[in-house]
Amino acid sequence: MRHNYLDNTPMEKAKEEYLSFLSDNSFTHKTEKIPSCESAGRILSEAVYAAICSPHYNASAMDGIAVKAKDTYGASESCPVVLSAGQYAVVDTGDPIPEEFDSVIMVEDVTELDSGRVSILSAYHPWQNIRQVGEDICMGDMIAPSFTVITPSLCGAFLAGGVLEVEVIKKPVVGIIPTGDEIVSPKANPEKGEIIEFNSAVFSSMLNQWGAEAEIYDIIKDKKELLKSAVERGVAECDILLVLAGSSAGRDDYTSTVISSLGQVLFHGIAVKPGKPAVLGAVGGVPVVGLPGYPVSAIVIMDEIVKKLVDMWYAVKEEKHASVKAVLGKRVVSSLKYQEYIRVTLGNVGDRLAAVPLSRGAGVITSFTKADGILVVPQNSEGFEAGQEIEIRLLKPLSQIKASLIVTGSHDPLIDELSDMLKKQDASFSVTSSHVGSMGAITALKNGQAHLGCIHLLDTETGKYNESYIKKYFPDGGVKLVKGVGRVQGLMVRKGNPLGIKNFADIVKGRYVNRQVGSGTRILYDYLINKNGMNKADIDGYRNEEFTHTAVAALIAAGNADCGLGIYSAAKMYDLDFIEICTEEYDVLIDEKAYGTPQVERFLDILKSEKFKDRLLQMGGYRVD
Amino acid sequence: MRHNYLDNTPMEKAKEEYLSFLSDNSFTHKTEKIPSCESAGRILSEAVYAAICSPHYNASAMDGIAVKAKDTYGASESCPVVLSAGQYAVVDTGDPIPEEFDSVIMVEDVTELDSGRVSILSAYHPWQNIRQVGEDICMGDMIAPSFTVITPSLCGAFLAGGVLEVEVIKKPVVGIIPTGDEIVSPKANPEKGEIIEFNSAVFSSMLNQWGAEAEIYDIIKDKKELLKSAVERGVAECDILLVLAGSSAGRDDYTSTVISSLGQVLFHGIAVKPGKPAVLGAVGGVPVVGLPGYPVSAIVIMDEIVKKLVDMWYAVKEEKHASVKAVLGKRVVSSLKYQEYIRVTLGNVGDRLAAVPLSRGAGVITSFTKADGILVVPQNSEGFEAGQEIEIRLLKPLSQIKASLIVTGSHDPLIDELSDMLKKQDASFSVTSSHVGSMGAITALKNGQAHLGCIHLLDTETGKYNESYIKKYFPDGGVKLVKGVGRVQGLMVRKGNPLGIKNFADIVKGRYVNRQVGSGTRILYDYLINKNGMNKADIDGYRNEEFTHTAVAALIAAGNADCGLGIYSAAKMYDLDFIEICTEEYDVLIDEKAYGTPQVERFLDILKSEKFKDRLLQMGGYRVD
Repeated sequence: MRHNYLDNTPMEKAKEEYLSFLSDNSFTHKTEKIPSCESAGRILSEAVYAAICSPHYNASAMDGIAVKAKDTYGASESCPVVLSAGQYAVVDTGDPIPEEFDSVIMVEDVTELDSGRVSILSAYHPWQNIRQVGEDICMGDMIAPSFTVITPSLCGAFLAGGVLEVEVIKKPVVGIIPTGDEIVSPKANPEKGEIIEFNSAVFSSMLNQWGAEAEIYDIIKDKKELLKSAVERGVAECDILLVLAGSSAGRDDYTSTVISSLGQVLFHGIAVKPGKPAVLGAVGGVPVVGLPGYPVSAIVIMDEIVKKLVDMWYAVKEEKHASVKAVLGKRVVSSLKYQEYIRVTLGNVGDRLAAVPLSRGAGVITSFTKADGILVVPQNSEGFEAGQEIEIRLLKPLSQIKASLIVTGSHDPLIDELSDMLKKQDASFSVTSSHVGSMGAITALKNGQAHLGCIHLLDTETGKYNESYIKKYFPDGGVKLVKGVGRVQGLMVRKGNPLGIKNFADIVKGRYVNRQVGSGTRILYDYLINKNGMNKADIDGYRNEEFTHTAVAALIAAGNADCGLGIYSAAKMYDLDFIEICTEEYDVLIDEKAYGTPQVERFLDILKSEKFKDRLLQMGGYRVD
Repeated sequence: MRHNYLDNTPMEKAKEEYLSFLSDNSFTHKTEKIPSCESAGRILSEAVYAAICSPHYNASAMDGIAVKAKDTYGASESCPVVLSAGQYAVVDTGDPIPEEFDSVIMVEDVTELDSGRVSILSAYHPWQNIRQVGEDICMGDMIAPSFTVITPSLCGAFLAGGVLEVEVIKKPVVGIIPTGDEIVSPKANPEKGEIIEFNSAVFSSMLNQWGAEAEIYDIIKDKKELLKSAVERGVAECDILLVLAGSSAGRDDYTSTVISSLGQVLFHGIAVKPGKPAVLGAVGGVPVVGLPGYPVSAIVIMDEIVKKLVDMWYAVKEEKHASVKAVLGKRVVSSLKYQEYIRVTLGNVGDRLAAVPLSRGAGVITSFTKADGILVVPQNSEGFEAGQEIEIRLLKPLSQIKASLIVTGSHDPLIDELSDMLKKQDASFSVTSSHVGSMGAITALKNGQAHLGCIHLLDTETGKYNESYIKKYFPDGGVKLVKGVGRVQGLMVRKGNPLGIKNFADIVKGRYVNRQVGSGTRILYDYLINKNGMNKADIDGYRNEEFTHTAVAALIAAGNADCGLGIYSAAKMYDLDFIEICTEEYDVLIDEKAYGTPQVERFLDILKSEKFKDRLLQMGGYRVD
């Protein structure tokens, strides 16, 4: 066992000094010549000047006849001018104007007479209906300055100006070296201890979106010499090099040592969370960044550091994050030691944007896939209170966020199925869902953080569902309850029921896995504990809380627990045995202000559809009458 | 000569009926399976469910030792617990937890004793510091619904969930058939009458940006049978087919006839300007669109119709244009017959966004390369007045537009050179420049439409430049005059001076090309006419007005005119002879509110730099003392 402590350099200081070090060491872009017709989206390294005029000859702007303007003077409806065969030439749009002519009469204004003569009814001035040389572009004019992002119409202007090739900034080649003894390339059935290497796929996709070209190298085992030669090869072949994992200070963490042995480490350890164990260095002028192994930590360093290297390559000095003000839906506590990056969902409810924090685990990639934005809590701040107005960095277009239907509350896979059916109808429709439990749904609706809440709240006195809760929490109304589905709750146990669990009281026979406080299933659990005269303290695993039915099923299937309450469809998915306990009413609570909006209407239409019923029956464990 | 009249169907009606016809004829997307690691940016055609949990085994979240949580109960600083060799296992982050253990103590909290024993100072609860099975993703959970745009982090989530391939929407293949006898592939030195075919490059770039794949076919001559077989091949190979040019009603316009002979033409002629001669049809369920030959007309139809076909393919029902309110800088007159699309530049001056219309010519591709947005004037509207607040469709991000420095006034290539040097310093900097002449600069600054104006205004009474104009037009101040450069004005004539023009009075010897009213050069011209006691009516070409020095030079070089006033650098560029007339003071007028902003400061820094002086001397015709 070995452990060295890392530095804790503030992000801004590390970034500034690192970039200025690279600038002093002439880190800069390369260029290449590419065909103009394939240049859209690329960035000019040099100004482009027109080589020829466009049009490059006097061209007819119409279908008609080319004439001498002087020959038409005096023509009018009462006194038409007649031109003989030699006095005009028939031209189509784009045809060159014969040198002797300087005006074009459009075909609609020409009457054909005999012997090739034509009659015209009005006078034309010189150069009328002619696109004169250089009308669009003049030879020698600058079509676009250096560092312009090439648009499709610029491609056209280059070609029109006779510029067939343009000098653009070469995309920086960013090498990615995944490291680790336990790391394996993506596979369908990894063994225990094999960690699927998906970081390189995430980072190469990010790099592509930033205009870089990713070069993914083979996975390197945790051997110092192997890593050293991989880095040597990488800096020879790439413009920027990333080493994935091994950037911390554990016994197999060689990134920092290897970079120092070949070049220079400027920073090792940055005061951010997640993302602390990062290495910022350089070998022979090539920036080499050691990224933390946890995906979320690494994404933070990618965004804050690697993106800036790519910007520097493209001479972009300041690219501000798009951001928006939102009201924080839940208290956020943060360490004074770190600048924290907290993923949030955003929801536009009642014309107010609410931000709800997602999982803060550094290993939870789905906290990024679900996030609409990032809340950055500065170093030396203890966090923010619920209800405070805060600034959120946007990860998605605001228009998309604002159009999204916010569904919260009790977890059930049927919500995902419903979202899927909605998106199949219209891809621009989106649903943001979060699993905060039935009581969480009530709170979210009271605080204006959701349009819809899914609830299954048992009134332990009456044995009825939902209605008494609404009377209690919404005494003045403001919500509408829509009947949803009946669903079967029960105990999930391993296949074959090895502990012989027959009813709820039998959960003491093994290790239980619980649901979080505030979930409908937890309320059912507490009710059953009381009803059976049991003692919470006797339950092994009482504190092992999960947020979804599938998470409970997964832990039972993995052997981390022996039983847990959940729905039939989850048990079926994990091939578990299921002991039915009750059928509950899983209903939808709707903010009255959102009721009648197209989003909610479409949601309810699907909920009531035959197609949806079919899907539920296929999943099993639902009653749809 | 032949001419048929087109329909004039309103855009909305044409679009709606065309899309609903295609929908009835089962125009819909195809799908394909691709590796998850390369799927970023693509769109899911089916929901993706996790095939395995992530993590798929209980993994250590730390470097440390795996223990039984129960063995640690009671440990504290005053009463450490000592574990013997068999009671723990050393684990690194990511290592599987041996089955007998259920907690991990981080390395910092472990003290190594002799004989493999360790001492620990606090109690750990079950599953602490362990990433339990499914912490991130549970097998069976929906990772993303259908029609989700795949983000880099979703790529990671798919791989983490054991999904190595995903079903995505195949990019629609859009065939492009360029047509026309006069059309040639891009070349550096086209002959008279050869029109460079750049439309296919513009449209294929647009299609790529919309997520389609463009297939550009060989140019087809204006022969009905050739076009017919090209369309037959195109509809067999593509999902959407575009025929470029030949969509009007001239003698060589076969697009409509060919589409009807093979399938169906729904609309021929749409009430838009530019863009009227468009054909909307279908052959065997494949949409076939005939695009007008003029690039700007065709871009309008691409945006309004073809983009909608691609959206329909991707099930996007409603994609609104990003738009912004702006104040119109100049009166816009529009025909009642058409919906008009007017390209505008936008400038943020004094916290107000001003829109200035660009050239309305259908052949002027640079009106698109310079445009920041589009003003759509509805059919049945006569247009808008200067000063009116109007809605502008954005072509660029608003942040970029707002940061742009607006330079207007007299044309001189040095402004482009200056912009280029600014962008080389910082690519995110941008300059929007327009050539409205020196008097145009005064008007623009008075109306808050520009930050800077370049002027060279001769006071014909005193013979001095600029200052008297500022006193007259800005009696209350509000602007600052910064001395620019001296530049040589003179008469440009064809190489060898065939007409023997020796001084200004000699311009009567040939055809003159004039500059627009309000330009400094026009004021100089008027002054010289009076000074020489000449009569405007005697000048052949008095009404032939151009907006830039290079445009004047281009027309003289092309033989459209024999002489014109302009600057030395333009004459040099076009290899013309130059008869020097005077040196004028080309200065910069600055809105006082903009003075001191970083944009203006950087502009002035460059203006005064040695590097810029060198560039001017290289161009020739400037005095920089």
